[in-house]
Amino acid sequence: MQDAQQIIDTAHEMADAARRAILPLFRDASVMADNKRPADFDPVTEADRAAEMAMREVLARRRPEDGIFGEEFGQSEGRSGLTWILDPIDGTRAFLCGAPSWGVLIGLSDGQRMRYGLIDQPYIGERFEGGLGRARLTAPMGGRDLAVRRGIALDQATLMTTYPEVGSAAEGRAFARVAGKVRLTRYGLDCYAYALLALGHVDLVIEAGLQAYDIAGPMAVVEAAGGIVTDWQGGSALAGGRVIAAASAELHEAALALLNADEGPVRGSD
Amino acid sequence: MQDAQQIIDTAHEMADAARRAILPLFRDASVMADNKRPADFDPVTEADRAAEMAMREVLARRRPEDGIFGEEFGQSEGRSGLTWILDPIDGTRAFLCGAPSWGVLIGLSDGQRMRYGLIDQPYIGERFEGGLGRARLTAPMGGRDLAVRRGIALDQATLMTTYPEVGSAAEGRAFARVAGKVRLTRYGLDCYAYALLALGHVDLVIEAGLQAYDIAGPMAVVEAAGGIVTDWQGGSALAGGRVIAAASAELHEAALALLNADEGPVRGSD
Repeated sequence: MQDAQQIIDTAHEMADAARRAILPLFRDASVMADNKRPADFDPVTEADRAAEMAMREVLARRRPEDGIFGEEFGQSEGRSGLTWILDPIDGTRAFLCGAPSWGVLIGLSDGQRMRYGLIDQPYIGERFEGGLGRARLTAPMGGRDLAVRRGIALDQATLMTTYPEVGSAAEGRAFARVAGKVRLTRYGLDCYAYALLALGHVDLVIEAGLQAYDIAGPMAVVEAAGGIVTDWQGGSALAGGRVIAAASAELHEAALALLNADEGPVRGSD
Repeated sequence: MQDAQQIIDTAHEMADAARRAILPLFRDASVMADNKRPADFDPVTEADRAAEMAMREVLARRRPEDGIFGEEFGQSEGRSGLTWILDPIDGTRAFLCGAPSWGVLIGLSDGQRMRYGLIDQPYIGERFEGGLGRARLTAPMGGRDLAVRRGIALDQATLMTTYPEVGSAAEGRAFARVAGKVRLTRYGLDCYAYALLALGHVDLVIEAGLQAYDIAGPMAVVEAAGGIVTDWQGGSALAGGRVIAAASAELHEAALALLNADEGPVRGSD
């Protein structure tokens, strides 16, 4: 891509703008305590909107030809064939709890696949980026290249998802078949789980009910780090829905087989 | 306490020493990938031991009269009536996953109650401390006083625990009775959940199967911030076991009632 550096610079400027918009509202005790603001004031929605506006302003100035699909303000058609997919705050419940596992997600799609993306955690100051020749974490404690962990068998793997129930009852049972075979299952990290997979510390992330903007940025980061991201049938995960990210082809295959294993008689309601 | 400032300075020096011992081993990819180290090399155990040794060295130099009870090296009797209770890495599974929700826990007990304690998250650079007149977070993004959130009804509360199964089947059911009444339940944060309660963003933390060193430091921090920490019967939580931390007396009472509600016929094995 000829303008790779300009795309990367734009994404970082967007992430910087989102940080400035969101951080004043993270752990803002006055929001909860003071009641000076309207009773229906929602700090997450406020921060979400301010951050997406700030990112759209950067794009309008630097890359007006590109399309945009954002969680808060929807679709804007472009003319370049490239679309920026934005989730200003992924992990709104973590945000509300004050836990720094939410993230700003930015992805750039050419309609067929993710070309570049990043996961930014403003409070910790970590930025995981991947695509256009890069796979890198920058962080206050020092940066490093991103690379998935290889050679881990399923029974030694670490699996993450956000909610223990995962999704529907059937989705929960499918997840449980994988969870029953791995060494360790952990919950609650939202987009940060994909960042840890790209960092080589987590082997599988399996979720359901995702939106396209939940997975676009993480998919670019995980793929650039050598991982695989698909839906539960092995097809494209660009549309969201049921998503699996795996550190290796072997783990991906083994987990897909379990997710789609014949269930036998279904007990209880789906 | 006459030597309050000296106790506080000692605790901070201990936490600084633990940081230096642990951080080089956190997210150390070579541990997993290189196989240059023995096959049974366990980075968490290594970091745990190095950090407790470092903290004990500080105590031997600065407060040799105090007792010590540490996760790794057990009990050392003292003559001052004060005992330091140390968990060099609480949240070893989070540590292994690369997630920055583990913490260094330091507590100072007089045998009856916690006098001072801290929760330190070295990677983020956050230190939550409480007791001896202090209740404070220091952090790269700026410090603030710790204070629990008040006036939240149970059906508006946020509840945290580490594992969805919580403990035994009966403990899991008791937890589920509370989880069924709150607005939001989140998993996976280990000691960081108590820090968020002291920060005013979480209202209840309920766990089972804790060791004394898992709760000593967090108890001091939560109590200094105005919260309540007891066992599931409302008695002392100093010994660990089944622990509840609540932001208010009302929430504490409501949650205790649900934890101890008559179960009716027990189904399945306990």
